Amino acid sequence: MRIDIISVLPELMESPFKTSILKRAMDKGIAEVHFHQLRDFGLGKYRQIDDEPYGGGAGMVMMCEPLDNLISKLKSERNYDEIIYLTPDGETLNQKIANTLSIKDNLIFLCGHYKGIDQRIRELHITREISIGDYVLTGGELAACVLADSVIRLIPGVLNDEQSALTDSFQDDLLSPPIYTRPAEYKGLKVPEILLSGNFKKIEEWRSEQALKITQKKRPDLLH
Amino acid sequence: MRIDIISVLPELMESPFKTSILKRAMDKGIAEVHFHQLRDFGLGKYRQIDDEPYGGGAGMVMMCEPLDNLISKLKSERNYDEIIYLTPDGETLNQKIANTLSIKDNLIFLCGHYKGIDQRIRELHITREISIGDYVLTGGELAACVLADSVIRLIPGVLNDEQSALTDSFQDDLLSPPIYTRPAEYKGLKVPEILLSGNFKKIEEWRSEQALKITQKKRPDLLH
Repeated sequence: MRIDIISVLPELMESPFKTSILKRAMDKGIAEVHFHQLRDFGLGKYRQIDDEPYGGGAGMVMMCEPLDNLISKLKSERNYDEIIYLTPDGETLNQKIANTLSIKDNLIFLCGHYKGIDQRIRELHITREISIGDYVLTGGELAACVLADSVIRLIPGVLNDEQSALTDSFQDDLLSPPIYTRPAEYKGLKVPEILLSGNFKKIEEWRSEQALKITQKKRPDLLH
Repeated sequence: MRIDIISVLPELMESPFKTSILKRAMDKGIAEVHFHQLRDFGLGKYRQIDDEPYGGGAGMVMMCEPLDNLISKLKSERNYDEIIYLTPDGETLNQKIANTLSIKDNLIFLCGHYKGIDQRIRELHITREISIGDYVLTGGELAACVLADSVIRLIPGVLNDEQSALTDSFQDDLLSPPIYTRPAEYKGLKVPEILLSGNFKKIEEWRSEQALKITQKKRPDLLH
């Protein structure tokens, strides 16, 4: 998978892509991520990329031309499956969307900044708009990191233990059951007996029950 | 505000806190963020911090003792308003929660890793569990960055233009209206006439209408 990330602040994303799973995926050649500094496509001597909003109001708007030029250049080089704009008013990211994107070949992530991008870029180029949640961030850069992490870790070969991703929260629309490790008693708090029983059939039943119970209590909306 | 972040991979969070709003807030002395490497509290020669889950299954579990020792140390040094565990089965972060946290003085963010933390640490120390969305990440580090950014940018004095935060998506439970900047026509696509009219009362009406319309179309759930 190849991801091209467009941003005015690519340096913000440096450390997440240099550590952990994202680094491993890149070292293994399973994923490649390319950063594009939008300012390189800025206009005039000052490499302008934003301007005041028509109609007044606070905050700056990312201009059409630099974005159009950069995206058009990328599109001329290869076919993209999706050109994704990270924005709080996009569809809300969930595990299903991450699964869907994990089988794509070429993706563009566009990080908004300031008040966002000129509406016409959305009409001209954007094929999908994704929000990582109902809150506002300073820019789309952290959202791009989150989306990349949630997607790349699902590509086969990235995680050491693929089983592990399949038993994560949300893969079956349930939250995870409680987990414990040694010691069996810590400050008077004991691990549930059943987990020490060695009866794996019963343990699986208990875990399923717990997952359902916890989901019912905390997130009944996941059960439809 | 002071945030103490506990992690096995603090280096992942380096660049987000060195750039943008988070850096500005720290430079201005409005926020301070301290990273704590959990492994410094690991057990034995190998600084062990995780172990296999009781009852079997894939993935490792973060052990009680290193976490308990580190959190207890921090708690002995100051009073914390919340000790927050970033976990996919926590309450889902939204702008209201970000607003609430932005007026606190001392917070701990605990980043999960592997399969998560021993349940007993949740019972002993955690006062609030937050998820940034219904998807799984490799670890809690990116979630901690997202939570920090969403919270810190709301502290007065952090943003240059406070007005700007108040007109963001979600602050009034509505998505933002479309925005445009120069030129008035780009590749045949025109800015809506009304925005060029200079009639600010009408423009505000149009924006409110658009915000409502877009929210109705994309996120009717926000309107209750």
